[in-house]
Amino acid sequence: MLSEIIRNVHVKHPIVHNITNYVTAADCANITLTVGASPIMADEPLEVSDVTSICDALVLNTGTISGNRLEAMLIAGTAANKKGIPVILDPVGAGVSSFRTEAINKLIAQVKPQIIRLNTAELKSLCLSTRNISGIDASNENITDNIITFAQRLSVQTHAVIGVSGISDIITDGTHTAVIHSGHSMMRRITGAGCMLSAVTGAFAAANSDRIFDAVTAAFAVYGKCGQKAYKEGIGTASYKNRLFDEMTNPDTEEAEIEYR
Amino acid sequence: MLSEIIRNVHVKHPIVHNITNYVTAADCANITLTVGASPIMADEPLEVSDVTSICDALVLNTGTISGNRLEAMLIAGTAANKKGIPVILDPVGAGVSSFRTEAINKLIAQVKPQIIRLNTAELKSLCLSTRNISGIDASNENITDNIITFAQRLSVQTHAVIGVSGISDIITDGTHTAVIHSGHSMMRRITGAGCMLSAVTGAFAAANSDRIFDAVTAAFAVYGKCGQKAYKEGIGTASYKNRLFDEMTNPDTEEAEIEYR
Amino acid sequence: MLSEIIRNVHVKHPIVHNITNYVTAADCANITLTVGASPIMADEPLEVSDVTSICDALVLNTGTISGNRLEAMLIAGTAANKKGIPVILDPVGAGVSSFRTEAINKLIAQVKPQIIRLNTAELKSLCLSTRNISGIDASNENITDNIITFAQRLSVQTHAVIGVSGISDIITDGTHTAVIHSGHSMMRRITGAGCMLSAVTGAFAAANSDRIFDAVTAAFAVYGKCGQKAYKEGIGTASYKNRLFDEMTNPDTEEAEIEYR
Repeated sequence: MLSEIIRNVHVKHPIVHNITNYVTAADCANITLTVGASPIMADEPLEVSDVTSICDALVLNTGTISGNRLEAMLIAGTAANKKGIPVILDPVGAGVSSFRTEAINKLIAQVKPQIIRLNTAELKSLCLSTRNISGIDASNENITDNIITFAQRLSVQTHAVIGVSGISDIITDGTHTAVIHSGHSMMRRITGAGCMLSAVTGAFAAANSDRIFDAVTAAFAVYGKCGQKAYKEGIGTASYKNRLFDEMTNPDTEEAEIEYR
Repeated sequence: MLSEIIRNVHVKHPIVHNITNYVTAADCANITLTVGASPIMADEPLEVSDVTSICDALVLNTGTISGNRLEAMLIAGTAANKKGIPVILDPVGAGVSSFRTEAINKLIAQVKPQIIRLNTAELKSLCLSTRNISGIDASNENITDNIITFAQRLSVQTHAVIGVSGISDIITDGTHTAVIHSGHSMMRRITGAGCMLSAVTGAFAAANSDRIFDAVTAAFAVYGKCGQKAYKEGIGTASYKNRLFDEMTNPDTEEAEIEYR
Repeated sequence: MLSEIIRNVHVKHPIVHNITNYVTAADCANITLTVGASPIMADEPLEVSDVTSICDALVLNTGTISGNRLEAMLIAGTAANKKGIPVILDPVGAGVSSFRTEAINKLIAQVKPQIIRLNTAELKSLCLSTRNISGIDASNENITDNIITFAQRLSVQTHAVIGVSGISDIITDGTHTAVIHSGHSMMRRITGAGCMLSAVTGAFAAANSDRIFDAVTAAFAVYGKCGQKAYKEGIGTASYKNRLFDEMTNPDTEEAEIEYR
């Protein structure tokens, strides 16, 4: 499955519209190119509808959200829905502020993303409507049955495939659930590790829109495996990040361990 | 010629004002420093006139263009013209939206850039007033007589030196035309490869404003050669990008093959 | 002292709110993670108060300042003061425009930062109210008694610990002054070297808010030493930057030479 999904990205070379934060925008564009797709980053409300209309997927990332960028996301989301292309939401920092939580809830309600990719702190904040005081970084919390239940509940509520990243990853469409044991703790020492996974998910979904659940699972599996292989003892953060990109350039698709529940 | 043009950058250490997109801004600043110039990235309309007035060139890049950034570009362009310093336009994504195309046409009409650096899809969109549905990335299209004709026509229309990057590069002032066979397909796998070339062109033009055509040709020649030398078989995208910067730090100026037509 | 201050960052894992420019935002976030803290980059005026309230320090960086970002800084600064967490100001480009100089003076007057980290050109511009025509980069000017006097005067005026980076670094609280001979000229060939030092200072201060002068001194000492160790003869700019991050991942705390005056 993995090799076919990846090959589709390189063969179809889809264009992915990313409306994302200015911190990790370069990394998101680079990882999109690395996996064989073509990124466009544009967030001016006056042009996003035109831009989305030539694209094969839309990724919305709420890092450094602003009123203007939210407006752009809502317009682009409408264009994506009209064209019938997948929309991926990365609700970065859900719960860190009222403004951001309301923006995310508005995006879910109005744009109805096909995929939501988030970490455990963001998942809990969205499900329990609680304040997120742990910031924007992934925690080192283990995946528990509790987290799986939250993910399934959010999937049922939103009709989206939910991808939760953490020490283990969970992908669920409410009915089917996959758990992946991969990744590496060094991923929490580089900014944008989650954002980049959302960008990869967008690229994979763009080229495999007929099987979204598999596309998301493949994105998590490949990225997590590359995150593991990028590690070497005593490695510094810059070298680790470079190696992650290098691994993603020609990923090994044989080894992923996916546990279906 | 190349070595003298490059030396001028290191000796004069010009300051280059870049109004650019937030995706590749860091790469543009870093490549400007790498070739021996000093970048200022500033885009607040209320301050750009002051900033441009202490600079030696102005680079305008329309990636992630917004209404506000366009306003800043027009003000800075006026200040640059008043001071008589070179203005370089990189019309990123020309044709992907009506808003962007109009912004670019306005910049060409009002600011009258001395140099326009773009890829073949953008060139065709500007010359034929057609929609650009290939996104922002360079295509792998070969340079044809057709492309050369378009570049010469755009030069005559705008009075700018036109630099077109692709599998081969074309530089023309309408009368003289240089074709450079260099670069590498890996450059299309890293974001900002074109933006960085525009930044290098800005630095070279800033320190060699008495011979703009040669400065642009030198920028393309050096950058393309470094792009070739940065490649190694099986290299990943991050390593390739790092090696491109490293090659540009101390570029080999002996080897460029420039074909004048 | 150094090892304890660094250890506190890793143990307390403080969250640091950075309102910074879009050019070096990724580098600032990455260096914050590299030294063991957790960054949040958020600049929407409607949410910054909420964001600051869950953080342990606030870093304000005036690169690519805009009217909107200035408003966010003033709101976040008020929230930081209310919570009693350290505020670090990096007045990037002080003196390059009237708008920017006024913004910086407003931030100093209203937010009253505990720490100001800047280069010699910015220091002189702030102290003498003169135009800064050398751009945003650090000069290669030697630390003179004159510069020390300016730093002490700014500290007395603002009640902030002042950290001046240059060939040698100066840290002063008006009474105590430390001079550090470290760093490397390659740091002037990568963008964001100063911004990253401010981010490190923010992380160190967040975890050591009971001894701000020592925290700032430690940040400069460790960063400068890593900047020296990252250098190898003939190194390119990208490799140098990568090695700087790698050195900062596990810094050597034994070797810093700090001269107290």
